[in-house]
Amino acid sequence: MHETELRNDLIDVVGDDAVTFSPHHNPDDLHDESLHPCHVEPFAVVRPDSTEQVAQIARLASAHGVALTPRGSGTGLSGGATPVPGGIVVSFARMNRLLSIDTNDHMAVVQPGITLRELNEELAPSGLRYPVYPGELSGSLGGNVNTNAGGMRAVRHGVTRHHVVGLELVLIDGTVLRTGGPVVKSSSGYDLTQLVLGSEGTLALVTEITLKLSPSMPHSATVLVPFADLREVTRVVPSIVASGLEPSMLEYLDVLTMGAITGAASLELGVETSIAEQTAAYLVIVLETRTAEQLERDVEDLATLVQGVGALDVYVLPSSAATRLIEARERAFWVAKSAGVNDIIDIVVPRSRVPEFLDEATRIAQRHAAFIAGCGHVGDGNVHLSIYLPDDERREALLLELFSFGLTLGGQISGEHGIGRDKQGPYLALSDPTVLELQRRIKDVFDPGHLLNPHRLLDERPMP
Amino acid sequence: MHETELRNDLIDVVGDDAVTFSPHHNPDDLHDESLHPCHVEPFAVVRPDSTEQVAQIARLASAHGVALTPRGSGTGLSGGATPVPGGIVVSFARMNRLLSIDTNDHMAVVQPGITLRELNEELAPSGLRYPVYPGELSGSLGGNVNTNAGGMRAVRHGVTRHHVVGLELVLIDGTVLRTGGPVVKSSSGYDLTQLVLGSEGTLALVTEITLKLSPSMPHSATVLVPFADLREVTRVVPSIVASGLEPSMLEYLDVLTMGAITGAASLELGVETSIAEQTAAYLVIVLETRTAEQLERDVEDLATLVQGVGALDVYVLPSSAATRLIEARERAFWVAKSAGVNDIIDIVVPRSRVPEFLDEATRIAQRHAAFIAGCGHVGDGNVHLSIYLPDDERREALLLELFSFGLTLGGQISGEHGIGRDKQGPYLALSDPTVLELQRRIKDVFDPGHLLNPHRLLDERPMP
Repeated sequence: MHETELRNDLIDVVGDDAVTFSPHHNPDDLHDESLHPCHVEPFAVVRPDSTEQVAQIARLASAHGVALTPRGSGTGLSGGATPVPGGIVVSFARMNRLLSIDTNDHMAVVQPGITLRELNEELAPSGLRYPVYPGELSGSLGGNVNTNAGGMRAVRHGVTRHHVVGLELVLIDGTVLRTGGPVVKSSSGYDLTQLVLGSEGTLALVTEITLKLSPSMPHSATVLVPFADLREVTRVVPSIVASGLEPSMLEYLDVLTMGAITGAASLELGVETSIAEQTAAYLVIVLETRTAEQLERDVEDLATLVQGVGALDVYVLPSSAATRLIEARERAFWVAKSAGVNDIIDIVVPRSRVPEFLDEATRIAQRHAAFIAGCGHVGDGNVHLSIYLPDDERREALLLELFSFGLTLGGQISGEHGIGRDKQGPYLALSDPTVLELQRRIKDVFDPGHLLNPHRLLDERPMP
Repeated sequence: MHETELRNDLIDVVGDDAVTFSPHHNPDDLHDESLHPCHVEPFAVVRPDSTEQVAQIARLASAHGVALTPRGSGTGLSGGATPVPGGIVVSFARMNRLLSIDTNDHMAVVQPGITLRELNEELAPSGLRYPVYPGELSGSLGGNVNTNAGGMRAVRHGVTRHHVVGLELVLIDGTVLRTGGPVVKSSSGYDLTQLVLGSEGTLALVTEITLKLSPSMPHSATVLVPFADLREVTRVVPSIVASGLEPSMLEYLDVLTMGAITGAASLELGVETSIAEQTAAYLVIVLETRTAEQLERDVEDLATLVQGVGALDVYVLPSSAATRLIEARERAFWVAKSAGVNDIIDIVVPRSRVPEFLDEATRIAQRHAAFIAGCGHVGDGNVHLSIYLPDDERREALLLELFSFGLTLGGQISGEHGIGRDKQGPYLALSDPTVLELQRRIKDVFDPGHLLNPHRLLDERPMP
């Protein structure tokens, strides 16, 4: 790398107000929300504002053999967007526009830097929405694409993968290409859109995203159901999914997590004291319908269903409390972080195996003298656990046991956060070597010099 | 290739009752339903009955440098499963078992040779269904995976891609691996399941498929809506999708196609003569709900909606007529085939562009003195046209114009049939060379010797 030349070239591409150089970076650009930050000084942080600028940056990185780390809004939880020493962080903060909404085809074209909150606000007047709902609304769509983000509405609406129909990509050599398009089905060659989804910035730079939208449903109800036993709450889930009620959220919170998040939000849900005293866990169910009559009927049928399987009570929350509860749920990670949590996992298992997984997780935690608490998208089998065990080595051993058990149930290590740097150890240790090898060869097709987001996911080389 | 040795080895693997050798093949194994059959004698047709046998066959093919053509039930429409001279057809006819149903997790594990009809029948008692509904129920799930089959319910339930969560694969060197699993979300590395979906047998042999199921909805209505103008029928579609009624089918048929398929099925739909005389095209809408009350309400609201936008009338079909109409629609291809159709296309465009596409298609057909008629999954923008023009050269020119125009609208060449051999010309001519090159390099990762289903999709080498 010729530092002076690269510095001048980068300034030529984006202008000197859209790039910082070491050691003058904004510290906010140098980390995501991983619990295991490692402070690294990249050579530069650039903020391109067009695909052409991104392509020029890629060509410079290739020419100089410098690593590129794409960055959305830095809300990732697995160290997927943290810089590499001497590398270039490509921040998409300025490429944050909604380029078009098509209200006939229910499609939107966005730049990767737009946040979920911005997208939702811009879509609201159209009666359409992007139905995927990862908790963190300040997350960028580019980040969502790269982690295949899921979230609370996945039980009905699926995950990012199911709503992205086309991408504009910049390859590491600066080539710009488009995959897919504004159509909802295709059988015309290998689906490169799907391949890039969830690839954590290691295959290409995403510069434009075509999203499938859905009509907003005008009527909704949030139902809170306390249970005396965590296993009961998770056991009732398959029958709710089988009912055809099609809840748009189906979340569980153990009583510790519920207490912590409602306490942090000063939120009173109106659960009677005598019930609250018996409660070990809550199920939160959101129903959304086209008509008020249908909602009334669905809520009644849901109440009958859960009362038949051990619910202590059923509360239909007033809409303000419902909104605040969902917002508080979104903040669960931050509450755990402020409580000093040492690690979080977002393992996914078949939803009927959640009780078994949680039982074994409790036993594993006890064996390691760790404390765990959790909540999760239980309709998807996606369990979020906060793990309190400060000793790194013992905690890593515990995590490996947890993941290993989850995999024997048919699970996967991450349901929505991605592998990043934080889960590389168990991911590489527990995956089939043939599957890893195929992925490494696909990586080589896109990025033979291993310059795109190195040192994470498949790439276990130590940081330089 | 040492013919005698290979012959003996294949017999050793599958037994002599599960293999035929040239020239003693069953002619049914040597073609799919493409309108452009070319008779080719493969060296062998084998019917393995286990993954281990498939792996052994792959190892033999690699060792002898012989092409493998995977084959489901041969219902493909694009020449994707036709043999290669001297090659081995791997028929999955004996690997046709439903291996498991999980009624809690709503998952089924099947072998690739099971047909949609067999799967649906086996699932029926569980109250669950595999909601993807490609017209041809004798099609195999393995074929569906390899073409990413779509069909009539895609407007609500999506396509094969959205319901396959895991695969067992045999690579060309005989390695067996599993991708994904019985979970509905994952962010744990590149999604090899999605990469193989729609790859037309060119990347790996699919030996097991894990499918996500849905609860069957107990109440349904089929609504038939005649319009005086084809453009009107396609223009009303976006407002139906926007209504939140979530139809599970949204099909159009021009009056010629409707006449042909109902005539072929001797089906009387009860449309009054005075209405029928004015009708140019029909919209067929299926609503499915959890409760009878909701269905009644939804049908009323749908009727109000279509009457406000030019419907000539609205007919709620008696359930026997509804079933027969859907079955007749499934047979549209066969009716066109018996009418001597020369080509079919299944282009997909953004659904709001269907009227524009059909207008231009009519003009293009007139210019070429061709006759076209059609129907399609109009909720998906997926237009099926039958093209009557016997001259090959002129027809190819017409097709290239049609596809080229569809692509300018944001479309893709095939919505669900795949490229196979029949659409290679326009696919390779009209695709971005960078996108083709990336796909070819991915192909090389999986199958460096180009032995898996050669001479189709990306591989334009002439047949030997």
